[in-house]
Amino acid sequence: MLLRMSSLFLRTLRDDPADAEVPSHKLLVRAGYVRRVAPGIYSWLPLGKTVLENVTRVVREEMDRMGGQEVLFPALLPREYYEATGRWTEYGDTLFRLKDRKGADYLLGPTHEELFTDMVKGEYSSYKDYPVTLYQIQTKYRDEARPRAGILRGREFVMKDSYSFDLDDDGLKRSYERHRETYIRIFDRLGISYKICFATSGAMGGSASEEFLAPAPTGEDTFVACHHCGYAANAEAVVTPAPEAVTGERPAMRVLDTPDTPTIETLVAHVNEHHGLGVTAAQTLKNVVVKVTLPGSDKAETLVVGVPGDREVDFKRLEASLAPGEPAIFEAEDFARHPGLVRGYIGPQVLKELGIRYLVDPRVVDGTAWVTGANEPGKHAADVVAGRDFVPDGTIEAAEVRAGDACPVCGSALSIDRGIEIGHIFQLGRKYADAARLDALGPDGKPIRVTMGSYGVGVSRAVAVLAEQRHDELGLLWPREIAPADVHIVGTGKDGQIEAATRIAEELQARGLRVLLDDRPAVSPGVKFKDAELLGMPTILIVGRGLAQGVAELRDRATGVKEEIPLAEAADRVTAACRA
Amino acid sequence: MLLRMSSLFLRTLRDDPADAEVPSHKLLVRAGYVRRVAPGIYSWLPLGKTVLENVTRVVREEMDRMGGQEVLFPALLPREYYEATGRWTEYGDTLFRLKDRKGADYLLGPTHEELFTDMVKGEYSSYKDYPVTLYQIQTKYRDEARPRAGILRGREFVMKDSYSFDLDDDGLKRSYERHRETYIRIFDRLGISYKICFATSGAMGGSASEEFLAPAPTGEDTFVACHHCGYAANAEAVVTPAPEAVTGERPAMRVLDTPDTPTIETLVAHVNEHHGLGVTAAQTLKNVVVKVTLPGSDKAETLVVGVPGDREVDFKRLEASLAPGEPAIFEAEDFARHPGLVRGYIGPQVLKELGIRYLVDPRVVDGTAWVTGANEPGKHAADVVAGRDFVPDGTIEAAEVRAGDACPVCGSALSIDRGIEIGHIFQLGRKYADAARLDALGPDGKPIRVTMGSYGVGVSRAVAVLAEQRHDELGLLWPREIAPADVHIVGTGKDGQIEAATRIAEELQARGLRVLLDDRPAVSPGVKFKDAELLGMPTILIVGRGLAQGVAELRDRATGVKEEIPLAEAADRVTAACRA
Repeated sequence: MLLRMSSLFLRTLRDDPADAEVPSHKLLVRAGYVRRVAPGIYSWLPLGKTVLENVTRVVREEMDRMGGQEVLFPALLPREYYEATGRWTEYGDTLFRLKDRKGADYLLGPTHEELFTDMVKGEYSSYKDYPVTLYQIQTKYRDEARPRAGILRGREFVMKDSYSFDLDDDGLKRSYERHRETYIRIFDRLGISYKICFATSGAMGGSASEEFLAPAPTGEDTFVACHHCGYAANAEAVVTPAPEAVTGERPAMRVLDTPDTPTIETLVAHVNEHHGLGVTAAQTLKNVVVKVTLPGSDKAETLVVGVPGDREVDFKRLEASLAPGEPAIFEAEDFARHPGLVRGYIGPQVLKELGIRYLVDPRVVDGTAWVTGANEPGKHAADVVAGRDFVPDGTIEAAEVRAGDACPVCGSALSIDRGIEIGHIFQLGRKYADAARLDALGPDGKPIRVTMGSYGVGVSRAVAVLAEQRHDELGLLWPREIAPADVHIVGTGKDGQIEAATRIAEELQARGLRVLLDDRPAVSPGVKFKDAELLGMPTILIVGRGLAQGVAELRDRATGVKEEIPLAEAADRVTAACRA
Repeated sequence: MLLRMSSLFLRTLRDDPADAEVPSHKLLVRAGYVRRVAPGIYSWLPLGKTVLENVTRVVREEMDRMGGQEVLFPALLPREYYEATGRWTEYGDTLFRLKDRKGADYLLGPTHEELFTDMVKGEYSSYKDYPVTLYQIQTKYRDEARPRAGILRGREFVMKDSYSFDLDDDGLKRSYERHRETYIRIFDRLGISYKICFATSGAMGGSASEEFLAPAPTGEDTFVACHHCGYAANAEAVVTPAPEAVTGERPAMRVLDTPDTPTIETLVAHVNEHHGLGVTAAQTLKNVVVKVTLPGSDKAETLVVGVPGDREVDFKRLEASLAPGEPAIFEAEDFARHPGLVRGYIGPQVLKELGIRYLVDPRVVDGTAWVTGANEPGKHAADVVAGRDFVPDGTIEAAEVRAGDACPVCGSALSIDRGIEIGHIFQLGRKYADAARLDALGPDGKPIRVTMGSYGVGVSRAVAVLAEQRHDELGLLWPREIAPADVHIVGTGKDGQIEAATRIAEELQARGLRVLLDDRPAVSPGVKFKDAELLGMPTILIVGRGLAQGVAELRDRATGVKEEIPLAEAADRVTAACRA
């Protein structure tokens, strides 16, 4: 492959695009890899298309190697499949829905569990047919509420999704394990650094679901890691260890005058100073009201969530805990309709009476005593004891997770970081097989309900993640396997340099290397060097002023190491660098 | 590559699917290559996906070879691009339209002229940047009124579309010519037989547009060919040679009583017998009323089309002539609203007075005399002379084309056949560049409006066309480059045949051949042979009863030639057959 920049459809930009906030978005646009068409919808230009194709190839090779069989489903799907599993409604606004000319309902596939299940049901019947793993690499659609960061979170994106079909739980675990190993190979080959994190509370009792998160300061996901025992989990999956219940007598609950205490901080200062309590924020109980709507319903439930006052409610953790219900902020007009809920002074003591469900942080165990609202303006209550003065309807993981929190496995201090989800493996179980009645006929003639796993890799997202993790102030730094070319050869000057550079490029092409050649006649050396840094091929060869002395310059883009080499050895030296 | 049927996700069907009418649809479903999801929407199973991938590879290689640069656009597109060119409306019901969660209008791209134009405008500015040819291989969407024949005319399909951008007409012609040569190479490599047909009236004055039609009895397109001069054209593009105008006196028009003459045949018989006329059907003038609606309009125009009575109106030719207007049948209730139009007895004499537009076949030249309706029940008129008794508002190509019609180039008799459109090349000109104001800055500092070509290959359709053109009563007959495997090795028997077949398969895989191995343990030889015929690999090797004698059977699927060969030579013989 030899791409000549004199005719390549590529124009780099000097300035960051106005709408770009994260490095990958800025760099992929500036370097001419992608262009925006609409919010969360992008076009791929030639170099970008090549990178996307390279990622796709790695994913395909590793899926084939593990015995996955490739199929291809449509993106335009009739409603009936998703109606059967409830997802037509459950997906809410995230689903792109449309009608055809006859008025029939269709959707653009956000993920294909239903279709894969139906396909296997259509082809397979006997227990002898199983297990099987199918996959596709395909364009998917999600109408994200907040498309952002270029191709990092798009509304049209390329995904590899695969599904395993097994006859029993052990088989599912094996399929899951093989996918896990395959994903490790994929992301290692792609050159992405990642952390495998528990994605559900499976953390405590198995590995029903794990996410591959690529650490990046711009990541939307938060994850914790324990450097002592190796535990890692998405913040949404972190389980708060519940302390032992507290026994013994506590003084009776009493109401305190607490004027001008709009915040936990002012409340703590006030009760310690004026009522001699000596409590910390962690001993106050903050009660947050939300309204929760189930997809397809137009009625919201009012729900109160109680967390220790030193922690905020983490809305993403709250959402994950309530899914598929969707929580929303309880607004002033909602309070107006619920006079029993005294804004700023809510305590759980009255919730049962008001018929409002109350869920608490796992730290709020029976016998713990709290300072909390007294349900009257300007008043709080002390010694409000869980199990005595109020009985929660259950627990909920909604409080923020913080660095230094105890690891749920070994109790050591957790660290906390941000990351981007690049892969997800999930032991689905029988949910979709139940909906589709996917059975295999067993050796005894009795049906065996099939169990499934579901596994995804964000293919187009991986391109953005590579840019996010591998760049410097000058531009992109592609790993060789993913780079649009092995080497970027720059010819600068008017004394035969471009011709000399072209000869080396052709020689390297003949040897099977993928070459990007800057043979633009009327572009200054400075611009060419800047473009070479920005575009990010791993090896750069410059044929410039040294030509008269028979030398060229070999640069390693990632390390920045430069070396003057004899022109006669250039082809060999570049080949060695590219095949190292 | 070695695919083992013992684990391959493939189940062949004994019976044709109930909804299948054409051979490709029947065979691709029976052989387990594709499955229906919704009308015109299909999934690809592993062997089908491989065939699709093989076609894609050939198209990509040839597009790259001609210097095309690959990009990738989204399928989900905002309305604004198509609004600017009027196609948001013009596409009518064929466009899938949808709204996002914010209520903004989107469409699923049926073709991408607007997007390519916009992209070039975004990147290029100087005349030095041109010419450029960009292409993509991408999933497209059209809400066809009559999806049919499996993947032959789908609503979601894969297409290669490319666009050339040039500074002048000569450049456009060169780009067009290079695409034409590339398409010839593509379809030759794919093993599709095709005819290059004029697609517009360009036939008479250049080659603004040509279609590559694959002859097939099930084709939806009709094309004519002249075996004398080589002219070929889609029936919709055939231009009817107009005779010279007729001069000299003709008797005055007169009205005849013609009771019980509901058809042209009865009319001709009646006037010849009862009025002594001696005319043929070709001398009668048949007037067909249609209503024509412009996309986006809810008002239909009433239009009368006049054709010689020996010819039917060809609705597809009529549609092509009226596009983007859409003609529809004039129903009984429409006649009720137009009492001036006497059904069965319409003549053009009154149309001007009724304010109805009248378009005629090009054979209806000034001075020609016709027997036609007299606009009274039971009456016709004779000696109705064009230009004297009525003046048409123009001509229209709407009459059917027939075998034996005169070639518009050399006058020889035309033959007529059916075909499937597999490629289309089109000199677009400046329509889209005008809409987007795509200019290049010229050497003199003045803007040059860019001129474009648009070129398409039906990639998924090509799979169906191959099946349509290359099959026999037993199954499919893939050309080697497109076949899912080079060779299908069948092991039958329980005396080590499957093991022997597997050893040969592994040997051939090591040599780089793509092998499909039937190693299913509990399947009868008869079923295995049938499957091998149905699946259609070009070479079949059977390791069966002859194993004891050290022989195997080598079959050529297309010719049916069978040969007993020594087992020891099997790998070499298969290799030779596959690399012949």
